[in-house]
Amino acid sequence: MFPLNHWYVACTPDEFADKPLGRTICGERIVFYRDGQGAVVALEDFCPHRGAPLSLGSVRDGQLVCGYHGLVMGCNGHTVAMPGQRVERFAGIRRYPVQERHGFVWVWPGDAAQANVAAIPDFVWSDNPEWAYGGGLYNIGCDYRLMVDNLMDLTHETYVHATSIGQPEIDETPCETLREGDQVITRRFMNGIGAPPFWQMAMRMNGLDPSAKVDRWQVCRFTPPSHVMIDVGVALAGHGGFDAPAQVKASATVVDFITPENETSIWYFWGMARHFKPHDASLTAQIRDGQGRIFAEDREMLERQQSNLLHWPRRRLMTLNIDAGGAHARRILEKLVAAEQAGQVDQTEGRPAAA
Amino acid sequence: MFPLNHWYVACTPDEFADKPLGRTICGERIVFYRDGQGAVVALEDFCPHRGAPLSLGSVRDGQLVCGYHGLVMGCNGHTVAMPGQRVERFAGIRRYPVQERHGFVWVWPGDAAQANVAAIPDFVWSDNPEWAYGGGLYNIGCDYRLMVDNLMDLTHETYVHATSIGQPEIDETPCETLREGDQVITRRFMNGIGAPPFWQMAMRMNGLDPSAKVDRWQVCRFTPPSHVMIDVGVALAGHGGFDAPAQVKASATVVDFITPENETSIWYFWGMARHFKPHDASLTAQIRDGQGRIFAEDREMLERQQSNLLHWPRRRLMTLNIDAGGAHARRILEKLVAAEQAGQVDQTEGRPAAA
Amino acid sequence: MFPLNHWYVACTPDEFADKPLGRTICGERIVFYRDGQGAVVALEDFCPHRGAPLSLGSVRDGQLVCGYHGLVMGCNGHTVAMPGQRVERFAGIRRYPVQERHGFVWVWPGDAAQANVAAIPDFVWSDNPEWAYGGGLYNIGCDYRLMVDNLMDLTHETYVHATSIGQPEIDETPCETLREGDQVITRRFMNGIGAPPFWQMAMRMNGLDPSAKVDRWQVCRFTPPSHVMIDVGVALAGHGGFDAPAQVKASATVVDFITPENETSIWYFWGMARHFKPHDASLTAQIRDGQGRIFAEDREMLERQQSNLLHWPRRRLMTLNIDAGGAHARRILEKLVAAEQAGQVDQTEGRPAAA
Repeated sequence: MFPLNHWYVACTPDEFADKPLGRTICGERIVFYRDGQGAVVALEDFCPHRGAPLSLGSVRDGQLVCGYHGLVMGCNGHTVAMPGQRVERFAGIRRYPVQERHGFVWVWPGDAAQANVAAIPDFVWSDNPEWAYGGGLYNIGCDYRLMVDNLMDLTHETYVHATSIGQPEIDETPCETLREGDQVITRRFMNGIGAPPFWQMAMRMNGLDPSAKVDRWQVCRFTPPSHVMIDVGVALAGHGGFDAPAQVKASATVVDFITPENETSIWYFWGMARHFKPHDASLTAQIRDGQGRIFAEDREMLERQQSNLLHWPRRRLMTLNIDAGGAHARRILEKLVAAEQAGQVDQTEGRPAAA
Repeated sequence: MFPLNHWYVACTPDEFADKPLGRTICGERIVFYRDGQGAVVALEDFCPHRGAPLSLGSVRDGQLVCGYHGLVMGCNGHTVAMPGQRVERFAGIRRYPVQERHGFVWVWPGDAAQANVAAIPDFVWSDNPEWAYGGGLYNIGCDYRLMVDNLMDLTHETYVHATSIGQPEIDETPCETLREGDQVITRRFMNGIGAPPFWQMAMRMNGLDPSAKVDRWQVCRFTPPSHVMIDVGVALAGHGGFDAPAQVKASATVVDFITPENETSIWYFWGMARHFKPHDASLTAQIRDGQGRIFAEDREMLERQQSNLLHWPRRRLMTLNIDAGGAHARRILEKLVAAEQAGQVDQTEGRPAAA
Repeated sequence: MFPLNHWYVACTPDEFADKPLGRTICGERIVFYRDGQGAVVALEDFCPHRGAPLSLGSVRDGQLVCGYHGLVMGCNGHTVAMPGQRVERFAGIRRYPVQERHGFVWVWPGDAAQANVAAIPDFVWSDNPEWAYGGGLYNIGCDYRLMVDNLMDLTHETYVHATSIGQPEIDETPCETLREGDQVITRRFMNGIGAPPFWQMAMRMNGLDPSAKVDRWQVCRFTPPSHVMIDVGVALAGHGGFDAPAQVKASATVVDFITPENETSIWYFWGMARHFKPHDASLTAQIRDGQGRIFAEDREMLERQQSNLLHWPRRRLMTLNIDAGGAHARRILEKLVAAEQAGQVDQTEGRPAAA
């Protein structure tokens, strides 16, 4: 289950720089490419001639050319031409609303009529010279809600990421969960503690003594459908923590866009936007590599948790206070899906694309 | 769906030269080996004792010996002997009509009583010293009809095989499709054009100037159940094309035996019989290697087309004039399957072999 | 189908020496580890918090700690603690009766109330300084009954193991099958024959002339649920065979514990306990390596036999006198399963563990 009338992060521009990209998003097989004006286009990955995936084709003068028999597909999902053929009666294919924003391509897998560009969230770190961003993509075999749970309850850092960002103080410190409309916030403030290895590195990079006591914070924000932004950082103890002046802290936002591929698989776009030394590209690379290693530690746990849940489909899980963030997120998702289903326009397969 | 009362190419003799070969043909698990007279035998790959695959056994004095407990199977599907056992009451296994012809083993997976050796087609290139043959075998994950479509519409060469045999003139030139009984012919004649790389090589090999203008032809012939022979070639322009004298042309027959393994997988026996320099074995090898590379280019397209068709099972495809060959072939196959089903003798599992 | 109220060999202690072991036994996902007293514990491999596999966790002070969020699981299947949480209302997980015996861990996947430690069989070779044991573990994709059949009918040695322990005299010599309660014995005595390669090696190791004529014996004993012990050996001909004095023979017990992983997969613990030169560790290693190679020869046969039986589900197999051992074993298993089902306590999923 996932709501369809939302913007999901589908890919990054480099993924279709040379040739079209085929990717399944929320169960929809989609091809991404750029039109003649350089705008991203998202269409069903299905040639109306014989069903070949258009993503095996190429882009010619901003139009997608099927790699099997040369059908030329227009950016609106209607066939433009095919060698030696009249194409008026060709069935259209579905076009998906798509936007390029914040360094990502966002796609709307649901009802195109409801797509609202203003609904793509803004981020302070995007296109901001005071911030630097680095990240990557993992394809993980789990329900996207298991990853939301993972990120809305960071006590797992103590166990899964014990050698990098985990520390016992995380599960010793109670967290607080707030719901603001369809946004969920889980936050934890740990004051006067030692910094774990990852943050010691960040302090060193930022000119701070890594052995100093710090105030550490984690503020996780879930927004539908499945974005989790986590403000994280450490400040020298007693300077105000999250609100401390820049010169005594190292802070960042962990960026998590969790896009369902299908019911039990995700495209996980992870990254970190940091608010210090933004022009140090080698630091960006170093942090990205470290984060990539840390986040890879979750993969086996999530995939085997998924396997267990499929094996014991009727067993109920516990929802503790540390799980409140994930639980609220699930209830919001259920509400959104129910609302979509109640108001759903019949979306029959093979429906022609909007003109 | 595939008709069963037909001869299918099952394998080549080298595949069971050293030990029995187990292969699934039209969903039937079959073991191939040679009897004491050197004749090919095709039996169910199932030992009537404990169900072991007989293809894991060996051949002793022309009889198949099960590799598990030594049951000796006769070429008629009746057990001959088993150490220490009386075998009279052993269930027989099915024997399939089988013939060796044209360098291939042909099997009849349907009703043995209807098997007619005369129905195995003849080919001018077979056992003919003026022709040379080279080819190979690919196992591809698609419905066999997708490969028939592929071969009966060569406009895909322009896109899939752009660097070897494709050229724009293919889809610029209309093709003509004829149906003659249960045979379908699609043909295209392109006159006064440049030769594509594969044919330039053939011209060079044949003592012709590869930069000369040529008349090129493609005559695809489908015969049930799934053979597609394609007469192809180039002649120096203006000498009569297909009918030009041998010294001004390079011509060949592309040989395609497409045998269903099951509903979504095929054994694809591809090759080329050429009508020039037949004794040049290194040329045979060179052409076979080149053809193998070219035909491998179709694999990803066909397997992903198959995947798309399974993903969108109710979506209708377009049938254009270039697809007429494949469309006629499908109608013929549907007719043949319907006729088989109407007249079908009940073929219950475990039926004893014909004596 | 397999009876559940039995002791099955689950693993060997070395498999969970460093970290917990997750293994599926009779369809049950189980985690094995040692408690604070060093006793083996077997629990459902499912954390009651969020369903993570406990086998990805670690053992701390004899308690299993979930590797995801640090839940501390007690050896009785009840949660002991979790950082920052009250755990009284946590659902229990199932605890399986488990015993360490004869160098193996034995688990009872059925009704714990019926588990009777005395039902674990004794073996003369266990903890006996006159015997040496070496063995290994294979995971093979077949119904466990196919492996029972394999071991209760050794005529297959002539074919599958022709170069090591097979010889024509095996299937030339009739076997005798006895049923004693729920135990089945199949035995064969071959007198005055040459020894096959494996036994020639054993004779040489035991100071006997490997070219001498021998009396060879094979006595296979099946006991439920799926243990097959095979007394094997050779004695110089005419000294009494199985009953010959130790100095003229080489004898051993082939040990086979066949544990279902699920309906079509097994954990096959194979080994050999030998009754000569027990302190020669290099001989133990040599025999284990040889036996490992021999038993690996059965894998392809069993897996492809399983595939054939799934392909032809309604086809009946032959049961000959050589198959009487396996046939008796199957009838005993059917009787045991039927009795379990008749008397079954409702075992609903998620039932709390016994206190």
